[in-house]
Amino acid sequence: MTENRIDTASLQPLIHPKSIAVIGASAKPGKLGGVPLHQMDAYGYEGKLYPINPKGGEILGRPVYPDIGAVPGDVDMAIIAIPAGKVLAALEACVLKGVKVAVIFSSGFAEIGGDGIAAQERMSTIARQSGMRILGPNGLGVTNIAACVFATFSPLFLPRMAPDGCIGLVSQSGAFGGYVANLAAESGLSFSTWITTGNEADIDLADAIALQSEDPATRVILVYLEGARNGPKLVKALGMARDAGKPVIILKVGRTDAGAEAAASHTAALAGADDVYDAIFRQAGAYRAKDIGEWFGIARAYAISAPPRGREIGLITISGGVGVMMADEASSNGLEPTPLSDTAQRRLKELVPFAGTRNPVDVTGQMVADLSDFEKMVEIVVEDQRFGTLICFNAGVGRNEDKGFEIQHAWANIRTKYPDVHVAISGATTPAVQRAYEEIGCLVYTEPDLAVRIAAAMAECECRLNEPAVAAPSPAARQELPPGTLNEVRSSEVLRAAGVPAVGSRLVRTGDDAVAAAREIGFPVVLKIVSADILHKSDIGGVALNVGDEAAVAAAFDRCMEAATQNAPAALVDGVMVAPMVAADGVETILGVHLDPVFGPVVMFGLGGVLVEVLRDVAFRRAPFGIEEAHAMIAETMAAEILSGVRGAAPADIDALAQALSDLSRFAAAHADVLESIDVNPFVVGERGQGALALDAVVQCRG
Amino acid sequence: MTENRIDTASLQPLIHPKSIAVIGASAKPGKLGGVPLHQMDAYGYEGKLYPINPKGGEILGRPVYPDIGAVPGDVDMAIIAIPAGKVLAALEACVLKGVKVAVIFSSGFAEIGGDGIAAQERMSTIARQSGMRILGPNGLGVTNIAACVFATFSPLFLPRMAPDGCIGLVSQSGAFGGYVANLAAESGLSFSTWITTGNEADIDLADAIALQSEDPATRVILVYLEGARNGPKLVKALGMARDAGKPVIILKVGRTDAGAEAAASHTAALAGADDVYDAIFRQAGAYRAKDIGEWFGIARAYAISAPPRGREIGLITISGGVGVMMADEASSNGLEPTPLSDTAQRRLKELVPFAGTRNPVDVTGQMVADLSDFEKMVEIVVEDQRFGTLICFNAGVGRNEDKGFEIQHAWANIRTKYPDVHVAISGATTPAVQRAYEEIGCLVYTEPDLAVRIAAAMAECECRLNEPAVAAPSPAARQELPPGTLNEVRSSEVLRAAGVPAVGSRLVRTGDDAVAAAREIGFPVVLKIVSADILHKSDIGGVALNVGDEAAVAAAFDRCMEAATQNAPAALVDGVMVAPMVAADGVETILGVHLDPVFGPVVMFGLGGVLVEVLRDVAFRRAPFGIEEAHAMIAETMAAEILSGVRGAAPADIDALAQALSDLSRFAAAHADVLESIDVNPFVVGERGQGALALDAVVQCRG
Repeated sequence: MTENRIDTASLQPLIHPKSIAVIGASAKPGKLGGVPLHQMDAYGYEGKLYPINPKGGEILGRPVYPDIGAVPGDVDMAIIAIPAGKVLAALEACVLKGVKVAVIFSSGFAEIGGDGIAAQERMSTIARQSGMRILGPNGLGVTNIAACVFATFSPLFLPRMAPDGCIGLVSQSGAFGGYVANLAAESGLSFSTWITTGNEADIDLADAIALQSEDPATRVILVYLEGARNGPKLVKALGMARDAGKPVIILKVGRTDAGAEAAASHTAALAGADDVYDAIFRQAGAYRAKDIGEWFGIARAYAISAPPRGREIGLITISGGVGVMMADEASSNGLEPTPLSDTAQRRLKELVPFAGTRNPVDVTGQMVADLSDFEKMVEIVVEDQRFGTLICFNAGVGRNEDKGFEIQHAWANIRTKYPDVHVAISGATTPAVQRAYEEIGCLVYTEPDLAVRIAAAMAECECRLNEPAVAAPSPAARQELPPGTLNEVRSSEVLRAAGVPAVGSRLVRTGDDAVAAAREIGFPVVLKIVSADILHKSDIGGVALNVGDEAAVAAAFDRCMEAATQNAPAALVDGVMVAPMVAADGVETILGVHLDPVFGPVVMFGLGGVLVEVLRDVAFRRAPFGIEEAHAMIAETMAAEILSGVRGAAPADIDALAQALSDLSRFAAAHADVLESIDVNPFVVGERGQGALALDAVVQCRG
Repeated sequence: MTENRIDTASLQPLIHPKSIAVIGASAKPGKLGGVPLHQMDAYGYEGKLYPINPKGGEILGRPVYPDIGAVPGDVDMAIIAIPAGKVLAALEACVLKGVKVAVIFSSGFAEIGGDGIAAQERMSTIARQSGMRILGPNGLGVTNIAACVFATFSPLFLPRMAPDGCIGLVSQSGAFGGYVANLAAESGLSFSTWITTGNEADIDLADAIALQSEDPATRVILVYLEGARNGPKLVKALGMARDAGKPVIILKVGRTDAGAEAAASHTAALAGADDVYDAIFRQAGAYRAKDIGEWFGIARAYAISAPPRGREIGLITISGGVGVMMADEASSNGLEPTPLSDTAQRRLKELVPFAGTRNPVDVTGQMVADLSDFEKMVEIVVEDQRFGTLICFNAGVGRNEDKGFEIQHAWANIRTKYPDVHVAISGATTPAVQRAYEEIGCLVYTEPDLAVRIAAAMAECECRLNEPAVAAPSPAARQELPPGTLNEVRSSEVLRAAGVPAVGSRLVRTGDDAVAAAREIGFPVVLKIVSADILHKSDIGGVALNVGDEAAVAAAFDRCMEAATQNAPAALVDGVMVAPMVAADGVETILGVHLDPVFGPVVMFGLGGVLVEVLRDVAFRRAPFGIEEAHAMIAETMAAEILSGVRGAAPADIDALAQALSDLSRFAAAHADVLESIDVNPFVVGERGQGALALDAVVQCRG
């Protein structure tokens, strides 16, 4: 894993360059080297702009310099729009000139393999050695709308976007970045900064997220992620965004096997298990959107409105059935349509006798007539439960522009009185009415169910942002671990030393030692042959259960050894394990650790038993993590319900389980350099207060 | 349950009236009695139009008649737009006049309770006795765009909609119907017929679906459902649509508990368990949409394009990451992004060396330049796997109108060659380019993932339409069932007689009979006290397991009876059950029957054991159904994977299980009039060929 340092100071010239040179400048507005010049000219970039082209001449009234060395003043940013073969030389020249950041449009590097990879590695080296930051190659560049900086060849920023955009975009794909620019333009939205990272020879998506976390103009960060190269650095950047109170909304591709196969053929950069990304995002307080609509919808909602305060939602409708639909959508997405008090319901009935008053509140079609009563009803609703969110469905009524503006006016009055409530209007509107709503911070949706879903997603984002940031615990004390697979006795010892409760067994090589071990452990005991070469130990008679006294232990030891000799003469036998005969009373679970190629050691938790293979109901967390995170991890699985006690069963010792998961994670973090994997199966969780115990475990180390 | 006859002949005048009277006609275009006249006048309705109002005069150049009796000619349809108090008298007048169908706008009936309910019941009686059909009351009426029939007071059909709309809408909510009219107008779509059923005094949603099934102008039926009053009639109407080859796309509210609570306060008509609706729709070949966007999106897709042929999908993209996203979406929604052959992949590489060629095919940004090559690439893709669906992502490229039209032209060539392929374009477009695409039957989406999701939903709809319609099996032979709860011995007998394998037990009242029964059954046996009053029989010593010989049986009988006398002296004891001691080897499942208030007897299947309570993983089907449907039902649950054998376990006897489910359903159908519920738990499914067996069962009858 490469260094995970983030140096946002060196990244500032990427979005606030005081001077920009365009290497490969063109007078033609449609050319790679022409687009940035023409867009910046159109927007009125106030810094120095230096076209560079050996042909010389003048572009847009500016003298063209033959090379960057010839530029009279300092150059903060160099845009490089020349063929791949000439890029490295241009970069060297930039370094000599003292350029702070280079933005490379050119393609023909890592994405074409072979020489392209070598050239890109050279690029990375230049960045590392010189301190000059590099964005790209093979990217669509960067824009800062308010500063009129357009180091991009995307033509999608004209017509002019508003300078007060608050959406920060980070996209690993240039094409997708352009697509999002179009989405924004069509929604009347704008960006604070818009960054496409391309091949990420130097500046990567973590850098871009960190930069936007510190950028005061950015309210919400939209991330399009194909695959992270440096997991810990991404985690750090997400932490910076959380600390800055900025929601990070992530669209990550490669969710399914088909997607993963497509991804593998797309670029080798895509690695790391998809469900590990899920866990990382959750752990870092970021939100992974389900689809493009939700992803962009959340950003739009943050850009226009106050986010929901809490999860209580008031629903207002002029169609009872749609009220039901909105309540469905709310409760299946974690919002609470709290019923109104009897008093409030009585007051609503006084205004409209046949109104539905519980919540959803069905103001009925009659309300279309009298908007002063409508306003009173909304006030009764919001006052009664202090809802953080109000969503209203107007059906087709808003199609009539006069009525649409009247309703908008009623909502404007509501907003003045309750400015911190998240308000969304759904149903028919006209563009002019929609603009009026948006000006007062009300969202407008065509679909009422979508309005509820986006509010629910925002409430979840807010909840994650407001969770107290918990410092990761320190890694566990270091143990000496040999390479290869540790046998069950040694694996158990290692876990116990790490604080994870595991059966205390002994490895013995003689009958006398077996008897001595059994005496120490206490009867009855279990004996089992220990050999990595013998898989089905009980099948060959290599296991003796419930052995009750010393004579029986001696006999069982001989039988086990004999079974190995007879049935697996070639097997390497470590000896015989003597362990207490434990009644496995409790809930069987599985704990595991594996090394994710991007994020390092990751801990897994799931329910044990046959059904698990069918359910695939497991949770992951990046190591190390504390007890609270372990509890959150357990709560994500269906095991949580089983552990809390079903059909009258006593609740299990979830605290002991959480402690074990955290301890396992601290152990994994301390040994990330040598560890390959850990399987603890079963990990039996007893009744509350009775603890938990690993009955079997395998620790694998590298090499 | 009311009669489920559907008489579409009598419904024809609802959409093809030759003459229409408007009772409560108004010269004011915005009034209830004015909107229909003005809309029909604007569209140019060619039948006779008779304004009725005691005030007389003239409206839109037509003489106003004082009452319907005064109209000179026949009247097919009467639109009733007068206060509730006058509606019944008007209906009687309509019957006298020989009106064929009355459309009642007026509200103030069942929805206000009390007298309103009585008045509406009177309305139903008038319809039943006279044969005059009634739509409403409290509805927004009906339109037939091509016939220029607007028996609605919704103002949303102006500006004029196209006469060639193929979407049939049935909405139980008027407000929602108006909202959908606006959705259609904004998408440039139109309806064949648009029907809101209101309070359903006579014509209900099943009638409307049946009418549209027979209407040649309707290609796809969109249903908005709050709650069906007559389940069997709805099932019949859905069957008519399936037989006519028309997909029915349903939006049903009331999915969650919160929704159900909101629904209960909305209208008492909403009953029937939501998951039973799911099963009914599945069984009847209809499709339940997840949200409004999907619901309307599918209709739009049918209106514009050829539906997917099969589930194979070719994905084309100019952004590799979005290709991955589309592949994710395809495979998680049941579509198959089949990889291209090596030959095809080689040919693609020849055209664009750095293209992704597996499927998704990443044509890369370079392709933006050369569209003849693009066309060749698409042809290679579609030819290679004969894909039934092609979805392409253009990113922001389509924002440029010139390029947008060039790409559209390439697709027009493709469509000419492959007219039966479902083609969807996603990314940026302009309205003009979108219209051009739609004219050649290509769908246009902003979001590529949505394009894939809608294609997947259509493929599922097509699959359901193309399933061979299986006739429901005949109900089972009738058995005499006493009212109340049958004890386990009797319940077992009933099931066995119905063909469901169940443990054969005997009820005995003396020790001698117990011994005789045991002798017949064969040792070992189980004895259990039989009494509805004793719940925890083993706790009080009322159960004896594994009883091995005659003497032991006699002793066990005495112990069981003694235990009952001692511990539950007041209990009514039926006797003692003697049953074979069965080793419950196999997969534990649960079968059940309950009576749904809307759909009648419904069979449930799920996995047994503790986890089931957590998983809530059960499937339902309306009784009776055959073995194939039973297999489909099993396949819907996670039990299917367990039954097929996990972790090397032998596959279970799924055939025996399916047979039992079908037999249980035939029994339930035959006894729907007396049956309350059946619980078979556990129903143990042995290894394939070993059959299955109910170890315990309770049959409950009504009364």
